[in-house]
Amino acid sequence: MDKIPVSVLGATGSVGQRFVSLLDGHPWFEVVSVTGSERSQGSVYGEVVHWVVPGDIPARASRMIVRPTDDPGSAALVFSALPSIVARVVEPALAAQGYVVCSNASALRMETDVPLLIPEINPDHLQVIEAQRRRRGYGGLIVTSPNCAVSAFVFPLAALHAVFGVAHVHVVTMQAISGAGYPGVPGSDIQDNVIPFIDGEEPKLENEPRKVLGSVKGDQIIQATFTVSAQANRVPVSDGHMAALSVGLVEKATLDRVCQALESFRPPQSVSALPSAPQLPLVLHRAPDRPQPRRDRDNQSGMGVSVGRLSPCPVLDYKMVALAHNTLRGAASGAILNGELLVAEGYLEGHGQAEAA
Amino acid sequence: MDKIPVSVLGATGSVGQRFVSLLDGHPWFEVVSVTGSERSQGSVYGEVVHWVVPGDIPARASRMIVRPTDDPGSAALVFSALPSIVARVVEPALAAQGYVVCSNASALRMETDVPLLIPEINPDHLQVIEAQRRRRGYGGLIVTSPNCAVSAFVFPLAALHAVFGVAHVHVVTMQAISGAGYPGVPGSDIQDNVIPFIDGEEPKLENEPRKVLGSVKGDQIIQATFTVSAQANRVPVSDGHMAALSVGLVEKATLDRVCQALESFRPPQSVSALPSAPQLPLVLHRAPDRPQPRRDRDNQSGMGVSVGRLSPCPVLDYKMVALAHNTLRGAASGAILNGELLVAEGYLEGHGQAEAA
Amino acid sequence: MDKIPVSVLGATGSVGQRFVSLLDGHPWFEVVSVTGSERSQGSVYGEVVHWVVPGDIPARASRMIVRPTDDPGSAALVFSALPSIVARVVEPALAAQGYVVCSNASALRMETDVPLLIPEINPDHLQVIEAQRRRRGYGGLIVTSPNCAVSAFVFPLAALHAVFGVAHVHVVTMQAISGAGYPGVPGSDIQDNVIPFIDGEEPKLENEPRKVLGSVKGDQIIQATFTVSAQANRVPVSDGHMAALSVGLVEKATLDRVCQALESFRPPQSVSALPSAPQLPLVLHRAPDRPQPRRDRDNQSGMGVSVGRLSPCPVLDYKMVALAHNTLRGAASGAILNGELLVAEGYLEGHGQAEAA
Amino acid sequence: MDKIPVSVLGATGSVGQRFVSLLDGHPWFEVVSVTGSERSQGSVYGEVVHWVVPGDIPARASRMIVRPTDDPGSAALVFSALPSIVARVVEPALAAQGYVVCSNASALRMETDVPLLIPEINPDHLQVIEAQRRRRGYGGLIVTSPNCAVSAFVFPLAALHAVFGVAHVHVVTMQAISGAGYPGVPGSDIQDNVIPFIDGEEPKLENEPRKVLGSVKGDQIIQATFTVSAQANRVPVSDGHMAALSVGLVEKATLDRVCQALESFRPPQSVSALPSAPQLPLVLHRAPDRPQPRRDRDNQSGMGVSVGRLSPCPVLDYKMVALAHNTLRGAASGAILNGELLVAEGYLEGHGQAEAA
Repeated sequence: MDKIPVSVLGATGSVGQRFVSLLDGHPWFEVVSVTGSERSQGSVYGEVVHWVVPGDIPARASRMIVRPTDDPGSAALVFSALPSIVARVVEPALAAQGYVVCSNASALRMETDVPLLIPEINPDHLQVIEAQRRRRGYGGLIVTSPNCAVSAFVFPLAALHAVFGVAHVHVVTMQAISGAGYPGVPGSDIQDNVIPFIDGEEPKLENEPRKVLGSVKGDQIIQATFTVSAQANRVPVSDGHMAALSVGLVEKATLDRVCQALESFRPPQSVSALPSAPQLPLVLHRAPDRPQPRRDRDNQSGMGVSVGRLSPCPVLDYKMVALAHNTLRGAASGAILNGELLVAEGYLEGHGQAEAA
Repeated sequence: MDKIPVSVLGATGSVGQRFVSLLDGHPWFEVVSVTGSERSQGSVYGEVVHWVVPGDIPARASRMIVRPTDDPGSAALVFSALPSIVARVVEPALAAQGYVVCSNASALRMETDVPLLIPEINPDHLQVIEAQRRRRGYGGLIVTSPNCAVSAFVFPLAALHAVFGVAHVHVVTMQAISGAGYPGVPGSDIQDNVIPFIDGEEPKLENEPRKVLGSVKGDQIIQATFTVSAQANRVPVSDGHMAALSVGLVEKATLDRVCQALESFRPPQSVSALPSAPQLPLVLHRAPDRPQPRRDRDNQSGMGVSVGRLSPCPVLDYKMVALAHNTLRGAASGAILNGELLVAEGYLEGHGQAEAA
Repeated sequence: MDKIPVSVLGATGSVGQRFVSLLDGHPWFEVVSVTGSERSQGSVYGEVVHWVVPGDIPARASRMIVRPTDDPGSAALVFSALPSIVARVVEPALAAQGYVVCSNASALRMETDVPLLIPEINPDHLQVIEAQRRRRGYGGLIVTSPNCAVSAFVFPLAALHAVFGVAHVHVVTMQAISGAGYPGVPGSDIQDNVIPFIDGEEPKLENEPRKVLGSVKGDQIIQATFTVSAQANRVPVSDGHMAALSVGLVEKATLDRVCQALESFRPPQSVSALPSAPQLPLVLHRAPDRPQPRRDRDNQSGMGVSVGRLSPCPVLDYKMVALAHNTLRGAASGAILNGELLVAEGYLEGHGQAEAA
Repeated sequence: MDKIPVSVLGATGSVGQRFVSLLDGHPWFEVVSVTGSERSQGSVYGEVVHWVVPGDIPARASRMIVRPTDDPGSAALVFSALPSIVARVVEPALAAQGYVVCSNASALRMETDVPLLIPEINPDHLQVIEAQRRRRGYGGLIVTSPNCAVSAFVFPLAALHAVFGVAHVHVVTMQAISGAGYPGVPGSDIQDNVIPFIDGEEPKLENEPRKVLGSVKGDQIIQATFTVSAQANRVPVSDGHMAALSVGLVEKATLDRVCQALESFRPPQSVSALPSAPQLPLVLHRAPDRPQPRRDRDNQSGMGVSVGRLSPCPVLDYKMVALAHNTLRGAASGAILNGELLVAEGYLEGHGQAEAA
């Protein structure tokens, strides 16, 4: 059985490296090209990349010549770790050329015909793809992954929204250093410190959850109507974004029912069967001091979202904390899971794996 | 002019050490005794203390024999850094014996006839002292200082409550390691981590601000009626408690007016003149990434509270962050300022300084 | 095929937890009991342990009743994570009763008839076991693992000693927080700090390498004759002990030959075949800024020792750095590998696995 | 009495900022200009600088227009925080124009007619200034400050060299993040990590101490003849460089005598009287776990060097650790002290202060 040829766009950055690392040995995908900015194009990947993710550079990728980002070659599917400003131009161009684009960039996340996809939560949003292709004239397609911190706290919101409806959300994030990419935050800024500011982050935290939990109406994804207030902080932690959140519900509910809604959250069976899907995407902790980034970020290969400290909120209804590994669940692994869903749903037809899946 | 003789109760702990360090060279107070638990009583302070605050042990204190906590000797005023369980018994006993007690313990903070005192905010709460003495039969008296994190975010609340009324508060704290005392949080728990739990902290964060901003009615302090929802986190920072807060106001107000209310916050002139009072207790930052613990905790010798990131909140009315040095503003320096206010207001009469002040 | 029943002594501590975690699913061993101090004896392990290692408590161990440390029950082999003061008494008693003891404690490391065992380096030291049993009247036996920092830097020493002879060693360690056990180093001591002192550590760093690299003469292990000067520091790193070392050689050698000696270091084939043995126990880095604790400690499941920055030393002959995961290579995994070697060498005869190995 | 007009070269960098901050309110010096690279020239300093040192930007400097680095205006003395590659060209040009240059750059440190000056150690090296001026045709002059880590460990070496002679030194540094300037080390590199590499550092650590402790012979500074082996590491600490060192002495000495040599180290009285000079430049700690960066770096306003853990070394003669605040003692404050010495020694004649001093 042939693997599906894929490319990593923006492969020299830290999220790009995560893609290259995670795709090494992937059961369905095979990296056939890596792309980079002008600075690295034409160079050997292993020589030009400043490797910052755990483990060694996969040997095969290491020897590849870095291609221009607008020409990923013979790949059928591309994973994009491009800067947003580049993604805004390149991703539509590639989709027009027939590539299936799984993007981690923020550029197109809020477009009404582009799924902001989390397979365990909103696989039905793929319904807009047909309209996306038709209206935009794409031979390929584009799906996007949410912001890395949203990827954490949108899971409990999804579980609660499905049962009770979410009306208001107050969220304060404590985000890891790796979320800023590389070189990212200077060590002399974050050492023994908290920085209560991440440029451009709070609007994403306030808007993206509404789209992830929105619904398809005709050709568009209509955002859910709850409001979110977000405050983003950078903390001296290597990996793992924490969110302290309070939620106001549409339908009032007892603590027991809320607890049960969180614990019984399950994705569709077809999603759980995907290679990168966690067994239990939302893990509810009962210990009073969990979850914690260092101890829980690697849950289920970094794909499990940990929720804990559930209790009544004197101002809204319930408060809790949520944690996810920001470069795995919240970036590279999440986007790979999106790619797997696209394969399973037949969007890669004509490629060996699509038939197999 | 003679200095007022004072004692530090619980002087071997980290807050007790801060008291001893700060009182060295104080213009009004002179440490005449230090007390400790049975383990250290009768020993030389400099030999039994494991000194963890900056600088050296003051030479004079270093040579003192540690006294039992229920017998501080010839002091007129005692600064208490006792564990709450001990404070609950010892502090009333000492007040009954005639000592003026400035306590940093949580034991008696919520008693209706015991001021939870911040001189810049509620010096009028001293009015209940007369009733406290009468009803409890104290020759001395007790005032308490708020929780170290409350000491940070109650300042902007005070400024807003005075002008607009505060209706709801949502607060998420990111608290420094030193707030847990010594040895406190194990290094292997907090390294590269966030712990979303501090035992017993959230009720304090939810209740104490209401009392600090309450009003005197007859013989009692009546709590303000707003509600607070709090989530407490420990972060890998040495000193400086951050609080991300959102505030719902009783009277709606523009951003400009809110800004002005924060910037124009001033204590009574008599309070500003106290030796440990900061020039400007509430500092409003305009830079988008301030305040930060490492860069702002030492503002005005650790007595300035820094507020920043003021912006509208989609759920309540305004959001912001507040920062204070937890062992200075939020503990030892704050309690010393309380002692200075008591002197200035004549509660130490019969002692040299009281007349001078 | 039956697994060999093993016990973890001191199972509630942090190294004990690592043993329990690592032995879950081990191909040869099965945990049949856990022991603890009086405080925890008779309690359910999962309820009394404060779990601090990654992942969840293995379900089976979680339900075990904690046994007294001097009575591990039906195990054939025991892995000891006991405090040294307890180990000194209990381990010999257990060996006398017939247990095979793989100890991580320092108590008996320097006994001339007790191997200080690293299977890749000195498996021949097992020759003294016969004398150990005879002289001490043991039905069982005792082997020990070296200090966690020694486990890192003794690997390059072993490679160099075998080829050129080591004459002098100067070593400065930068040791992780987890090396101090739990609760270990207070967070308020190590945050934003380096502590140039680890109680009792420097003598171990100076003496143990000489025994590890010693030779068997008759019934005893005779220490190698080189001298070591050690300075131990605690640094704010979660896991991974670094050592900066300079080595004076007996036989002078070129950089190329030294490089080759390090790269060609290989354990006996029989050792490499053990389940916990790394493919390549000593990894030589050429990148100028490696190894680093966070990036290299997990090499080969935490069993690979990383060496780098090899260059001539103006005072001795060559300088370099060495890194190992202190609770895996330097503690639990290292001791488990010792147990595996004992099985493979037939010291567990009469138990199922011994025949299989 | 008029203050001496000074300029800060490279004032937008982190060391430049330290100069600007420390010179605010200096009793002898007044900042009359700040210079920067092309990027910032012509801009208002307070608007173009990304202020990273504690406290606010001094108001007066804040309003200055940034000048080109080769034209510091009406200053008599310039403090240089220039990158080495710029300093190599600009500093000689300014000295030729008559400026007195106190440089923190490494460019000219090893020139035989340029003092590598530490006033407490080698004020006699100023004797080569006359030859420097004559041979280079300078109207002004140049003195340099040592590398920030050398500034720490050269103090105990100076004390020992004066009494016993130093023959060999083995030093391993653990250097703070701020030593890399701004932005310097990425947070994602240093968080929970140690980096055993600082580009270009080890040769400085090996060479500069020999020059600092050298002697003037005719027109030149002749280096001392001991050898140094250095290994430089970056550790996750905000400020304060630690050095673990072992020293081989020319004349063998008892521990008591070594101790006494360290404790009795005193600068010339004329140096101790300078405004930025510490009372006791070398502080010997007896506590077994000191010095530590966070607890000891601010000793005597960051100008005291702390030494501790003195004990015999099995390979050389004595081992110890030394600590200094890298951006104060090791950079800005050290260079300001150099400027003060030049004033006191009459090198600024014709300027008001020179006569006063």
